[in-house]
Amino acid sequence: MPRMKAGSETARQLRLLSDALDSGRLGPVRRLVNTLAPAEIGNLLESLPPGKREVVWGLVDAEDDGEVLVHVGDEVRESLLADMDPDEIIAAVEDLDIDDLADLVEDLPDTVIDEVLKSMDRENRERLEQVLSYPEDSAGRLMNPDVVTVRADVNVDVVLRYLRLRGELPDHTDHLFVVSRRHQYLGRVSLASLVTHEDTTPINRLIDDEQPAIDVGDGAQEVARQFTDHDWISAPVVDDNNILLGRITIDDVVDIIREQAEHQALGAAGLDEDEDMFSPVWRAMRRRLIWLTINLGTAFLAASVVGRFEDTIEKLVALAVLMPIVAGMGGNAGTQVLALMVRGLALGQVGASNARVLLWKELRVAGLIGITLGVVLGLIVWAWFGDPQLSLVIATALTINLLSAATAGVLIPLTLKRLGFDPALASSIFLTTVTDVMGFFTFLGLATIFLLS
Amino acid sequence: MPRMKAGSETARQLRLLSDALDSGRLGPVRRLVNTLAPAEIGNLLESLPPGKREVVWGLVDAEDDGEVLVHVGDEVRESLLADMDPDEIIAAVEDLDIDDLADLVEDLPDTVIDEVLKSMDRENRERLEQVLSYPEDSAGRLMNPDVVTVRADVNVDVVLRYLRLRGELPDHTDHLFVVSRRHQYLGRVSLASLVTHEDTTPINRLIDDEQPAIDVGDGAQEVARQFTDHDWISAPVVDDNNILLGRITIDDVVDIIREQAEHQALGAAGLDEDEDMFSPVWRAMRRRLIWLTINLGTAFLAASVVGRFEDTIEKLVALAVLMPIVAGMGGNAGTQVLALMVRGLALGQVGASNARVLLWKELRVAGLIGITLGVVLGLIVWAWFGDPQLSLVIATALTINLLSAATAGVLIPLTLKRLGFDPALASSIFLTTVTDVMGFFTFLGLATIFLLS
Repeated sequence: MPRMKAGSETARQLRLLSDALDSGRLGPVRRLVNTLAPAEIGNLLESLPPGKREVVWGLVDAEDDGEVLVHVGDEVRESLLADMDPDEIIAAVEDLDIDDLADLVEDLPDTVIDEVLKSMDRENRERLEQVLSYPEDSAGRLMNPDVVTVRADVNVDVVLRYLRLRGELPDHTDHLFVVSRRHQYLGRVSLASLVTHEDTTPINRLIDDEQPAIDVGDGAQEVARQFTDHDWISAPVVDDNNILLGRITIDDVVDIIREQAEHQALGAAGLDEDEDMFSPVWRAMRRRLIWLTINLGTAFLAASVVGRFEDTIEKLVALAVLMPIVAGMGGNAGTQVLALMVRGLALGQVGASNARVLLWKELRVAGLIGITLGVVLGLIVWAWFGDPQLSLVIATALTINLLSAATAGVLIPLTLKRLGFDPALASSIFLTTVTDVMGFFTFLGLATIFLLS
Repeated sequence: MPRMKAGSETARQLRLLSDALDSGRLGPVRRLVNTLAPAEIGNLLESLPPGKREVVWGLVDAEDDGEVLVHVGDEVRESLLADMDPDEIIAAVEDLDIDDLADLVEDLPDTVIDEVLKSMDRENRERLEQVLSYPEDSAGRLMNPDVVTVRADVNVDVVLRYLRLRGELPDHTDHLFVVSRRHQYLGRVSLASLVTHEDTTPINRLIDDEQPAIDVGDGAQEVARQFTDHDWISAPVVDDNNILLGRITIDDVVDIIREQAEHQALGAAGLDEDEDMFSPVWRAMRRRLIWLTINLGTAFLAASVVGRFEDTIEKLVALAVLMPIVAGMGGNAGTQVLALMVRGLALGQVGASNARVLLWKELRVAGLIGITLGVVLGLIVWAWFGDPQLSLVIATALTINLLSAATAGVLIPLTLKRLGFDPALASSIFLTTVTDVMGFFTFLGLATIFLLS
């Protein structure tokens, strides 16, 4: 297994900070915290239990407050906002980019939102309202309306003069967007081409009009796919009439990819990616309870199958000893198929056109594994209980359950997706229900037929 | 549950392509494929079963071959390379960036590597050899030695003249790097600042020397962390003497983040992130067999615990019916704790300094859940079997197993990490072993003491 180096630097900072906090002298803590980038501060705050978190949050430079709030999960953000009074919040958020502000604004108390809107100039307020008018997780919500545009019919020197007059460019500006008089998107010009071409070069010779623009209604996942497929740093966002509305940048896309990854990892365990590691016990409990209650229900379903065979078990207690093996192996094998399918669905690599081929492949893999491990399992059981018929029954039951597991592993995520649900979230609970029920049923059923009659 | 829009565009392309392939006319397939970016072609190839994959691969424009090879997983890459003769491979890879070539080169046959090296000019060959001299997954291996450097003691107009003379810049050049005469890294100058400042501005007024450089020995995960924390597009790589060696760009970092996410999702099921969805059945089987054989071993461990209580079960068969519930609930609850811990460890948010606080929190959550679900479970069992003592035993066993699950969920990943193993890979198998063994042992043990004596 590869050795991990992930997060080692963060872990080191966390250790330093904890030591400084424990020593009780806040001067060194403040100095340490304020050498960090806002995202690093956010990461550290997420690592701290509530009491210490509040202390450190109070020591962060006021000018970093807004960026830190942008970089923490929803639940931690809530706990940080609870420690601020309205004036502090307004001061923290008023210098944020519009897309970041849009991301934050819904977590703010209503009275504070009004104050923030009042403190903005009209142009920015209208921009914020425009961004907020698009649904969450859409391109419109991710975009920043602050873009630098140029016309196609000028030369490089005109653009350079305009840029010098304008001064600072928005973060991550690698391209300027070329628009028509009606603000329709025509193409993009890279800063790299501006600095490598003579002053007299006409812009329309430098235009790249082959890259598609992002549709304002595209979902966040589709935006991320386009960025990674085309290796973009920034991309224009247009409406149905090809009017340029704003710009999405790679930093937001990286956040989408990371959130999606966390969503899949935590979602498979019935958790939310915004879960605070240190959320209050009551809250953590309530959220996990939903998932575990569903699990309790499916566990009773499996138990009721076992209950139908009480007579059989009474006569042959070895069945009770061995039945968890058949069920558990099915669950593990099915989880492997599921993991591949969920990745394939997320990448758009699995669909109606190749589902049948995949199912056939997985059934053959399951059959081969069933025969191999069935022989191993059968031999061990023979040695343990000295009953060759019991060996045959368990080997057969294992193979059947592995075939069920492969079928469920392929079909459950496909079905959930077709019904409009997120296969990353609910698949595993359905899968283990199938493998438990089928595992118990085939093993105890075969045993009843072949061992007791 | 949120509706998925992920990968819908890719799925649409896949459908179109499959229909065209099934119709047997290759002209439309070729046209369709060659409107796509290399990453999209790679994604489609990964979605196709072997026969169709070879057909489509043969239709890809030769000039895209290299980029497509860069964008597929190791296993699919191998299958694509197997379809090419040495001349095709050399033609495909010779125009790649050095970092991409370094990534590919180890999958090439030795004879082809020699040919590729011979076909390169001396400078590029030396650069490739330099990059290959660093360990895989290190900054040195990710960097591209092709960087644009400037001196601090010149003005903007000198730099612009130099860039115009130089012509095209490497992809994703958002900053030029300022170096000393001895090629030591001094800081960076953004293209944005070059185009927004007057020709006469001295470069040393535009230098940003606050951003740290990446150490050539840093791991890929650490590189990704720095990029995301600082929102970089590109960053300089230096050696121990601060000599500038190359540059890492955000596109490589996005790949690292995606691979890490897949590594965690598939690794938890004992799979490799480079697994080809359509890998040959024998190969898929061999790889999964290792994991499932380990699982079989742990299942026998759990079964042997049940075996110790055969006498008890013989007297009270209801225990066999109910024991999977206690074990399974522990596994599910522990998986939730594990998911949070693995994320925390990957982000560096969990360490010795907060492990105790976390464990205490998780124990309280588990205790509350144990009491709540214990009451529910107890009432159902009472209603089902009409035995209040059995209810008490199962409720107590559940609570104890949930407490064990919380302890295992916190301590197993921490211990694996401390021992130098990847907690994402092996944690779940250890966890379910603990929850199965403890679940069976406490339930059957308590039953033996309180119900049979």
